[in-house]
Amino acid sequence: MNLNELSATEAAKKIASGKIGVEALVAAHIERIRQREDTVGAWEYFDPDLITERAKELDRGPARGPLYGIPVGIKDVVDTVDMPTRYGSPIYQGHRPAWDASCVSLIRASGGIILGKTVTAELATFFPGKTVNPHNAAHTPGGSSSGSAAAVADCMAPLAIGTQTAGSVIRPASYCGIVGYKPSFGWINRVGAKMVSDTLDTLGIFARTVKDAALLGSVLTGRPLPAEDGPRAVPRVGFCKTYEWPHASWDSMSAFETAWQKVKDAGVETREIILPGPFSKLACMQADIMACEAAKSLAFEYAAHRELLSLELQELIGRGKAISVEAYDSALKHAAKCRDLLDQVFEDVDIILAPSVPGEAPEGLDSTGDPIFNRIWTLLRVPCVNLPAFSGTGGLPVGIQAVANYGQDFRLLAAADRTLKILAG
Amino acid sequence: MNLNELSATEAAKKIASGKIGVEALVAAHIERIRQREDTVGAWEYFDPDLITERAKELDRGPARGPLYGIPVGIKDVVDTVDMPTRYGSPIYQGHRPAWDASCVSLIRASGGIILGKTVTAELATFFPGKTVNPHNAAHTPGGSSSGSAAAVADCMAPLAIGTQTAGSVIRPASYCGIVGYKPSFGWINRVGAKMVSDTLDTLGIFARTVKDAALLGSVLTGRPLPAEDGPRAVPRVGFCKTYEWPHASWDSMSAFETAWQKVKDAGVETREIILPGPFSKLACMQADIMACEAAKSLAFEYAAHRELLSLELQELIGRGKAISVEAYDSALKHAAKCRDLLDQVFEDVDIILAPSVPGEAPEGLDSTGDPIFNRIWTLLRVPCVNLPAFSGTGGLPVGIQAVANYGQDFRLLAAADRTLKILAG
Repeated sequence: MNLNELSATEAAKKIASGKIGVEALVAAHIERIRQREDTVGAWEYFDPDLITERAKELDRGPARGPLYGIPVGIKDVVDTVDMPTRYGSPIYQGHRPAWDASCVSLIRASGGIILGKTVTAELATFFPGKTVNPHNAAHTPGGSSSGSAAAVADCMAPLAIGTQTAGSVIRPASYCGIVGYKPSFGWINRVGAKMVSDTLDTLGIFARTVKDAALLGSVLTGRPLPAEDGPRAVPRVGFCKTYEWPHASWDSMSAFETAWQKVKDAGVETREIILPGPFSKLACMQADIMACEAAKSLAFEYAAHRELLSLELQELIGRGKAISVEAYDSALKHAAKCRDLLDQVFEDVDIILAPSVPGEAPEGLDSTGDPIFNRIWTLLRVPCVNLPAFSGTGGLPVGIQAVANYGQDFRLLAAADRTLKILAG
Repeated sequence: MNLNELSATEAAKKIASGKIGVEALVAAHIERIRQREDTVGAWEYFDPDLITERAKELDRGPARGPLYGIPVGIKDVVDTVDMPTRYGSPIYQGHRPAWDASCVSLIRASGGIILGKTVTAELATFFPGKTVNPHNAAHTPGGSSSGSAAAVADCMAPLAIGTQTAGSVIRPASYCGIVGYKPSFGWINRVGAKMVSDTLDTLGIFARTVKDAALLGSVLTGRPLPAEDGPRAVPRVGFCKTYEWPHASWDSMSAFETAWQKVKDAGVETREIILPGPFSKLACMQADIMACEAAKSLAFEYAAHRELLSLELQELIGRGKAISVEAYDSALKHAAKCRDLLDQVFEDVDIILAPSVPGEAPEGLDSTGDPIFNRIWTLLRVPCVNLPAFSGTGGLPVGIQAVANYGQDFRLLAAADRTLKILAG
């Protein structure tokens, strides 16, 4: 196995025990990026000399922190003081932030190496960057965290940071066939990430294993990893089609039904979850809240550089400006009421499995796909993990997402890890 | 009356009717700043040529927007693309943001003129800048929005933007004897403001009249001003000492009791409000949440430039790092539970009057005073308005704050305006 194929957890163990050096690990990733970047286009900024220098420094210094020597890709809407940050927009060509984002500082403080900046859709919204799906270059990798998902899927990095406002972590994770983890709202500090929606924006994590996502999650949330010797059984699992089920293609329906059968066959207690009626409005309301807040968050770009914004983003902002404050307030209130019903939704189950996406990554590179299955969970602020367990009729990955009640992230990650093993079996 | 003494509302009317030009209005403020800045020290950045040029452009162009020609000071933790932004820290000496903050864009789009950047305490926390209290240069103006409060109080600007995490709008407004308005949490978009605490940070407004605060509030929240011919009576007023009452000096106690008597004498229905027991913990919990989140929000500054941080801020961050996630989570949960009790608190009253501050602005410039009377309301996310109605035994201003339930900002502002007239009578 090449070093770039190691999980972060495995690589950290090998470095800690002296079996491999940081420089060798980083060199393997640089080599992979050299081989594959022309095809995949995952990186907005990548400087092999800079990161080799960092790796050497880390090899010379004392071992430190749970991410010691581990390379991490950073979505290019997240600020880095030593690398340009373009936010996926020509407005910010060559822009150099004056700081590291909070999450970048925390990664560095834990011994991690910022490998480079990954391609993002325009200003973390919908207009795509150059990245393709590493499984099939004619298909989208999803977005807006396109480069982070593709880089991790293609073994260019074991870990990467993304952001989710609608479905920008779970959707590209599903399309690229990897683990995506969107934490509970507020669990990762957002300072230094270019904001779209204060109500929705959540930093998230891409990894190839659930354990790796938990490792980085622990560093960024400042919450300890649960002990390895916790209960091994998968808890009670709810299966929830959600009110967006009519948007599911055959591939996603089949993934959902297969998952249900496999989990049941493994002897796990399952039941169907029908969300309360008011949840049926959440997807539309999420879109309204996002548009409304994006119009204000991007007021500068719209006022001063409209000609450099895509027509798609101009349209989103225009739509947001047209939404009345009454509609906006009522959407926020409705979401709060639905959040109050979550204890009831999770009364008899510990986690819920629901579709991650309508289906495989769509063909074509002019859209990043549809976040319809992600909108409600983002607005509900609950943690979600994409489980890359299936593939569709076209041979591309199709995931299913595990969801838990607010703040149950580490229980969710533990359950997701075991569920993924059942699904892969 | 000099033009710089006009309220924003009066000045806007005079400009709209052609009685004065934008350049003349701006020139009067420039002249005032020239006279007074050496004494007051309200400005971090001020370029008379730049703003005169803007004023001329506005005079040449068509009238536009409710702030047409009105100068607004911007706290120097809020980004401006055409003026440096130092965040009150030597780390950012000479820093030039790549954008305007959302609120700055909205002010410009409404025809307002960004007059300059006002002095802030270090990174919007507690270590003071150079500003003094315009009523007595030996006393603090309060903070962290020190320059914004002092500039408006001293007629250098009719309006200014501040931020409040603990008490950084209401406290300096009280110390400087002006109106301060901290809106409902989330009502003003925070993009482009340097963050301390995602849970608490709220942009706010300084003005010399409540109407002016409402005018700028309407522009920034995108919510229409209520019709002038609404009900004129002051609604039911609760008087609430809060659990922090033991921190009140004679001056603040006296302001509170006098206000109660005057409002009662005006024939308004009043009653005492005793906050539910759990509210007694909110002030301590606000301090914990702020420290905990500040430690992450300022992770970069702490890791890369610790020697440039004040000892006070290093201590705050150190304290934040030491707070356990259990204590942090439990503080957030407790605050959410208290928010759920607000409907009950406001069941029989429309607004509450409560102390703004322990007393007059303390003597000395090495502290910005104590935000103890502001912490709970910030954590509760409710709108607050400082009413500059009284003065203390030392002759310095002492305010009282009007508070309403979440989202009742414009009802609060209308009631505050009428209450202030009663108190001043």
